[in-house]
Amino acid sequence: MKNVICARCVKCGKEYEAVPNLENCSCGGILDIIYDYENIKTKLTKDVLKNRTDYSMWRYREVLPVEEDTPNTPLRVGWSPMYEAQRLADMLGIKRLFIKDDGLNPTSSLKDRASAMAVAKAIEAKAPVIACSSTGNAASSLAGNAAAAGLKTYIFVPSRAPKGKVAQLITFGANVVSVDGSYEDTFKISAEAIKKWGWYNRNAAINPYLSEGKKTVALEIGEQLNWECPDYVALSVGDGCTIAGVWKGFKDLFALGLIDRLPRLISVQASGCCPLNRAIAEKKPWYPMEENTLADSIAVGVPRNPNKALNAITESNGIVVNVTDEEIMAAQKLLGTTCGVFGEPAGVTGAAGLKKACEQGLIPKDATVVSIVTGNGLKDVDNAIKATKPPILIKPDMSALISAFEENGIMPEN
Amino acid sequence: MKNVICARCVKCGKEYEAVPNLENCSCGGILDIIYDYENIKTKLTKDVLKNRTDYSMWRYREVLPVEEDTPNTPLRVGWSPMYEAQRLADMLGIKRLFIKDDGLNPTSSLKDRASAMAVAKAIEAKAPVIACSSTGNAASSLAGNAAAAGLKTYIFVPSRAPKGKVAQLITFGANVVSVDGSYEDTFKISAEAIKKWGWYNRNAAINPYLSEGKKTVALEIGEQLNWECPDYVALSVGDGCTIAGVWKGFKDLFALGLIDRLPRLISVQASGCCPLNRAIAEKKPWYPMEENTLADSIAVGVPRNPNKALNAITESNGIVVNVTDEEIMAAQKLLGTTCGVFGEPAGVTGAAGLKKACEQGLIPKDATVVSIVTGNGLKDVDNAIKATKPPILIKPDMSALISAFEENGIMPEN
Repeated sequence: MKNVICARCVKCGKEYEAVPNLENCSCGGILDIIYDYENIKTKLTKDVLKNRTDYSMWRYREVLPVEEDTPNTPLRVGWSPMYEAQRLADMLGIKRLFIKDDGLNPTSSLKDRASAMAVAKAIEAKAPVIACSSTGNAASSLAGNAAAAGLKTYIFVPSRAPKGKVAQLITFGANVVSVDGSYEDTFKISAEAIKKWGWYNRNAAINPYLSEGKKTVALEIGEQLNWECPDYVALSVGDGCTIAGVWKGFKDLFALGLIDRLPRLISVQASGCCPLNRAIAEKKPWYPMEENTLADSIAVGVPRNPNKALNAITESNGIVVNVTDEEIMAAQKLLGTTCGVFGEPAGVTGAAGLKKACEQGLIPKDATVVSIVTGNGLKDVDNAIKATKPPILIKPDMSALISAFEENGIMPEN
Repeated sequence: MKNVICARCVKCGKEYEAVPNLENCSCGGILDIIYDYENIKTKLTKDVLKNRTDYSMWRYREVLPVEEDTPNTPLRVGWSPMYEAQRLADMLGIKRLFIKDDGLNPTSSLKDRASAMAVAKAIEAKAPVIACSSTGNAASSLAGNAAAAGLKTYIFVPSRAPKGKVAQLITFGANVVSVDGSYEDTFKISAEAIKKWGWYNRNAAINPYLSEGKKTVALEIGEQLNWECPDYVALSVGDGCTIAGVWKGFKDLFALGLIDRLPRLISVQASGCCPLNRAIAEKKPWYPMEENTLADSIAVGVPRNPNKALNAITESNGIVVNVTDEEIMAAQKLLGTTCGVFGEPAGVTGAAGLKKACEQGLIPKDATVVSIVTGNGLKDVDNAIKATKPPILIKPDMSALISAFEENGIMPEN
């Protein structure tokens, strides 16, 4: 990889050669991939990108940690739509708002970006099997991306994982192990199994390439905003890998001279499970927390990537906001009715936090904000249904319809 | 609309001015939109498209029935990925196979193409409310596309509609009426209500613009294959609107000189509900049939668009194939494991029929085939789970894992 200098530990600074099967530093710290930006700068320019027809995450290959001859992975990951949501911006009292709908990735979550990267690196490592533990989305994205590339997967999920995600896993032919325990239990047993059987490790916060895949969401935001950096980027935070990736992406854009400043991150966690936001708010080291939220993807009591995540929030002069499950479900409805975007609970948590931050006067009225929706609402239909009124049920008869409208206060004339 | 000459009845040939709120001909026949291809030909060329950066269905505006100043609808509909599936082609014994994954549209089905068109036409008609009946996907796509555009919706679904689709409807803020009856019952009551309250009518096979939206899937297939026409296109058929739209799209491409021949269509229906395929096979007029299939989107006993659908199959020298529910669910797994594509039951019915046609020797070995996946598997998770083995459940403990692998004949070394 001519564009990569090395991998460097974020804790102790020790440097490693960027081989495909890198894991954590010997000190336990997470590695960060270090690029040769001066060289990349000459190749990845606004003009080059303007003429590029690959509309997937691989359009940014020059700043991704893959060998020059590694093939693009088969599924079309990335280049998700970014919608300007003017009515919602007006409601929230901010100037401009963009919704980046990453639920439209191939397996319907942002995690496809990390999993596609894992598949590319496993192919470089000539590994026939990839494994991971996950609250659900990393799992289904790995299963789908690996299946398309002809690789075998072993996947560990906590038994609470929503049905939609499990259905994906099984349909993609993964070997699925459902663990009767927390995400932490699931992570630990996957780590043991990966060690025992020598599978390629797609565990987030172990494999340093994953956040390099995730950062492509930020690269796209920059390009989709025509290289105008937003003032704020709101997103949900669980184990911390996504916010770390997003921050890395913006720093890449800045280092390459593609944007001229950096955004502030709005880190949103569930009130029932917010160890990282609590650490920032209390200005103390993080410590474990229970996993009390219906937003399963961010119900992470022991975040796997605290260092990179806390760095990202601090370096960006970020804002931390915690939201209740009720606020999350209200945000789901709000995005649905105003933008036609259906996100899963964790997927809309960023928007719930943005709304709260606006109400608390934390966001200036002239701000331009991007809110990332990290997963599709179809992944967790049961919670969506729970949060809403059931439809009107009638016999197929006009008088029944008219009565039902009357009873429900619906005025069909308007 | 300078590109549109008129709307013409497919039954009696009567012509109408192409106003936004067109419905059926006075004879009851369905209208077809007639274009000025000679004029369009000079504007919509391969070179023009090569330089166009709008990757949505609206990149083909010149051959779509909208006014020049009608804005593109807000959600990014269309330009779904088309994957070459070489391993699956080898398994089926054909030369080349492409999977067009229309489940990656904004509300996760091909119906977004029709609904985006309906929203564009409702805006032209200055209608504040749109209504339709649907087995589910047309409903959720209308709800989402209308919400994004700020229009109100009334939507009628049969009470059997899968939960995923209902969750979408409610989240998008539609007024949902669940009808305790068949699709036919649902359609009839929606028609009465639309008449009574004067809503804009998005019922398929009534509104002639919808199949013009759907045809964009065929326009994309042409362009994504670099204007090489495939030999066969396989897809599921319910009320007949989608196959009619696909055929219209290929005929457009041919009329514009963008492809030099036409494909043969493979019309796939469920054995338990195949009135159109039965009509072709028996060379007799179609007549109603029960709705006995788990593929809810194509459980249509009284197809609303029989004329256009039967014309499409006949004109293309098409093939009709019926598949059982078991064959549908097997195709779901087959696409998942070989391509990383998760389609809903009706979404993979085309692939199930293609497999069967290959096994019956109906498809030549040197054929290039496109199989359209019309909806995302996440829309109907319960059926996907029913069709597969549940995951291995263990306590978080290595010895439990090793025993479970042994019991299930899994050899993690490989």
